[in-house]
Amino acid sequence: MNYKMMGRFIGKMLVVEAIFMLPALLISLFEGERSSVFAFLASIAGIVLVAAVLLLLCRGSKNKFYAREGLVCVGLSWGILSLLGCLPFYLSGAIPAFVDAFFEIVSGFTTTGASILTEIEGLPKGILYWRSFSHWLGGMGVLVFLLAITSAGGGDNGFTMHLLRAESPGPNVGKLVPKMRKTARILYELYILLTIVNVIFLLAGGMPLFEAVCTAFGTAGTGGFGIKNDSIAGYSPYIQNVCTVFMMLFGVNFTCYYLLMLKQFKNVFKDEELRLYLGVAAGSVLLITLNLRGFYSTLGETLRHAAFQVASIMTTTGYATTDFDLWPTFSKAILLSLMVVGASAGSTGGGFKCSRVLLVIKSLRRSVRKVIHPEKVQVVRSNGHPVDEKILQNTNAYLAAYAIITLLSFILISVDGYSMTTNLSAVMACFNNIGPGFEAVGPTCNFSGFSSFSKIVLILDMLAGRLEIFPILILFSRSTWKRR
Amino acid sequence: MNYKMMGRFIGKMLVVEAIFMLPALLISLFEGERSSVFAFLASIAGIVLVAAVLLLLCRGSKNKFYAREGLVCVGLSWGILSLLGCLPFYLSGAIPAFVDAFFEIVSGFTTTGASILTEIEGLPKGILYWRSFSHWLGGMGVLVFLLAITSAGGGDNGFTMHLLRAESPGPNVGKLVPKMRKTARILYELYILLTIVNVIFLLAGGMPLFEAVCTAFGTAGTGGFGIKNDSIAGYSPYIQNVCTVFMMLFGVNFTCYYLLMLKQFKNVFKDEELRLYLGVAAGSVLLITLNLRGFYSTLGETLRHAAFQVASIMTTTGYATTDFDLWPTFSKAILLSLMVVGASAGSTGGGFKCSRVLLVIKSLRRSVRKVIHPEKVQVVRSNGHPVDEKILQNTNAYLAAYAIITLLSFILISVDGYSMTTNLSAVMACFNNIGPGFEAVGPTCNFSGFSSFSKIVLILDMLAGRLEIFPILILFSRSTWKRR
Repeated sequence: MNYKMMGRFIGKMLVVEAIFMLPALLISLFEGERSSVFAFLASIAGIVLVAAVLLLLCRGSKNKFYAREGLVCVGLSWGILSLLGCLPFYLSGAIPAFVDAFFEIVSGFTTTGASILTEIEGLPKGILYWRSFSHWLGGMGVLVFLLAITSAGGGDNGFTMHLLRAESPGPNVGKLVPKMRKTARILYELYILLTIVNVIFLLAGGMPLFEAVCTAFGTAGTGGFGIKNDSIAGYSPYIQNVCTVFMMLFGVNFTCYYLLMLKQFKNVFKDEELRLYLGVAAGSVLLITLNLRGFYSTLGETLRHAAFQVASIMTTTGYATTDFDLWPTFSKAILLSLMVVGASAGSTGGGFKCSRVLLVIKSLRRSVRKVIHPEKVQVVRSNGHPVDEKILQNTNAYLAAYAIITLLSFILISVDGYSMTTNLSAVMACFNNIGPGFEAVGPTCNFSGFSSFSKIVLILDMLAGRLEIFPILILFSRSTWKRR
Repeated sequence: MNYKMMGRFIGKMLVVEAIFMLPALLISLFEGERSSVFAFLASIAGIVLVAAVLLLLCRGSKNKFYAREGLVCVGLSWGILSLLGCLPFYLSGAIPAFVDAFFEIVSGFTTTGASILTEIEGLPKGILYWRSFSHWLGGMGVLVFLLAITSAGGGDNGFTMHLLRAESPGPNVGKLVPKMRKTARILYELYILLTIVNVIFLLAGGMPLFEAVCTAFGTAGTGGFGIKNDSIAGYSPYIQNVCTVFMMLFGVNFTCYYLLMLKQFKNVFKDEELRLYLGVAAGSVLLITLNLRGFYSTLGETLRHAAFQVASIMTTTGYATTDFDLWPTFSKAILLSLMVVGASAGSTGGGFKCSRVLLVIKSLRRSVRKVIHPEKVQVVRSNGHPVDEKILQNTNAYLAAYAIITLLSFILISVDGYSMTTNLSAVMACFNNIGPGFEAVGPTCNFSGFSSFSKIVLILDMLAGRLEIFPILILFSRSTWKRR
């Protein structure tokens, strides 16, 4: 293990975190929110102190850096980032219990949006800003950001590649352009641009600037922390529709936008993942609208809520315009399945990812065909190109890990005695980084009722989901820490 | 496609079915149950007629027979066997709706034990016998039986092997002894022997002969159809404990018994699947007993119900001694997870199978290790022997198919509007061939409330679960029926 390099990297990352806390501090100062001014000052001081110690202790090191170090580094980074990032919540008294504050910031950074808060509107604005901003930061990846602006890892020693691979969602990211840093920068430019456009559209609907910025943060990161107790329900239909469109946009593989910039429209149009993503969304909206006949007064209203909720759940954002827990079971079953499917790889969304669904189905189809025609060589193709067997193996391993973690977490949190639907949907909502589930964790409820033990299980689920399982598995694997 | 050979095989199989209906006919005659005497006579006549037509039409054929023909043959056989096997239920008026009768017999043959009947004790004894006997027949496999006693497929053209592979549960059956027919015969001898011992133990507890035989059929096939409305709850603790022990025994890989016969005790003791199977069962009993403190009056009673229910669910039998739907959520979560794990490969039980769980976990561990030590060659071992990559691939494909079918069925049957827990557990109870689920399909309830559409979905789930998915997938795959 190259501990020095890892320490240095985590140190740099903490500096970035401290810098990103400054706007929240300024807002607190501007609004004259004493407790949060103190909380942010103390947090920034603490973070800078830890960063300084790490950077001092970890000067100079060998240049070798392997995949496992990248994964361990990402896992540790996210843990430390969250531990220190929740300090403002805790120190300001906004969230009195530390485990709750930790839950809330992990939910933020992982863009889950599951909250333990029962009353949101009364919180100081600085705190609300930091809470929503954590989504934006976590959406594209804090480490990716660091890569985009600094020379964190030096040259071609694989450091940047391993990190980018470990933090970016989906099985096939990082092939946009040869240089990893350039990729990271392009991704962030697109991300910032789309966020600004989103804010402008929200402002055009008469939303106040602060709310528009926070809502756009939650949308861009596909997070889902609202700044109102009723999420997006209280806003105008126009604003709800803007959210629907932008949630869907942020759930698209960012490679598609890059290809659009290069005017490769045909490749975008033919992209199998994009087609599946849009097809599943459209089909779900249609089925739910049919199923909801008579539930709302007009067809337009039904369509609006159906589209919003499908976009919100499938992109794993988690905003709500209505209490979908009251919908008929068929609609709820579709939403529960969308939780699993998730957004596209290379987007800010979570879940199993459309591209993995495609790979799993294709590799299953190959197995069936192999039985029927054992003599034929069968190659799995994605967008016309043959898929490496290693990627198929990894996708299947991912499915296995996904199923095992879901089942184990479901058993563990059921100690609290909530209903099976509550427990299953709570695990799925956290593990897939969505936010609300059903029943006791439905859109009008929250996660405050769980025990500290269950909250820790769900925190690990959120991290495992956001980092696509392997960094967390490797962090807890014995062979990682064995000396060679 | 070698249609003639398939037709001939299905014809022979129907003759076996007709012969196996004779005891039920005799019981009906002996009890003087008019309606069922007529029903069995008419059914036997019908089956023999269909068989005769098939055997006449399909005389003479080429000798080549591929794996896909084996799988298609098994899928078709089970369909036809069930369509004709439900005639006694329907014609006797015991089950007035045909789809219900079909559901009931598929539930019987697939050893699921999910029932649409609300009142069992009033049924004619001949019908009750046929219902329970269908479990015994389906448990070890009707085709395996045919192989054991006839020269169905001729010599070494792969026919027998493909059939045995397709019908036997688990990924690694059929390696006991070189000759397939000998294997089939040994399996059936063990099966018959264990069933008889089971009957004797039940008789020793004062159970009437008819009830003992029917109960043993349900236990041996890990089916779960009871002949009392309250399943096994009304019997003495001794009988309940006998059932617990025998359910566990029938959930063991039959290879272990063969090895015991050969006095290879060490190999049995070291068998990884057996250890996992017994370990999971013991752990579950312990956790549930702890969780049920205060639920029953004594520790002994708690232990008895916990052990019974764990054995019943894990071996996918589905008998009940208590309404476990009233248990606390933690216990129910464990039961739900046991539904997935299932019994051992090469047993009469269903579910995902312990051996597959082992393979999935091992292949996941290898993926993690590959990231940590990419330079090392990693081989997955089972009982010390390296596992073929093909088997690992197939296991992963199985997991994918398993997850997709569960999710799709869950969406489809939710049209009926039952609760999510009901729907999910109904699908899991049918697909894993267990029987009862939770809430509206709990141990004190039944499947009669579902629409015909949902019943057909669940029928397909039961068949897919019993035949381990691939025969059913191949039956519905386009490329199977394409001419080459």
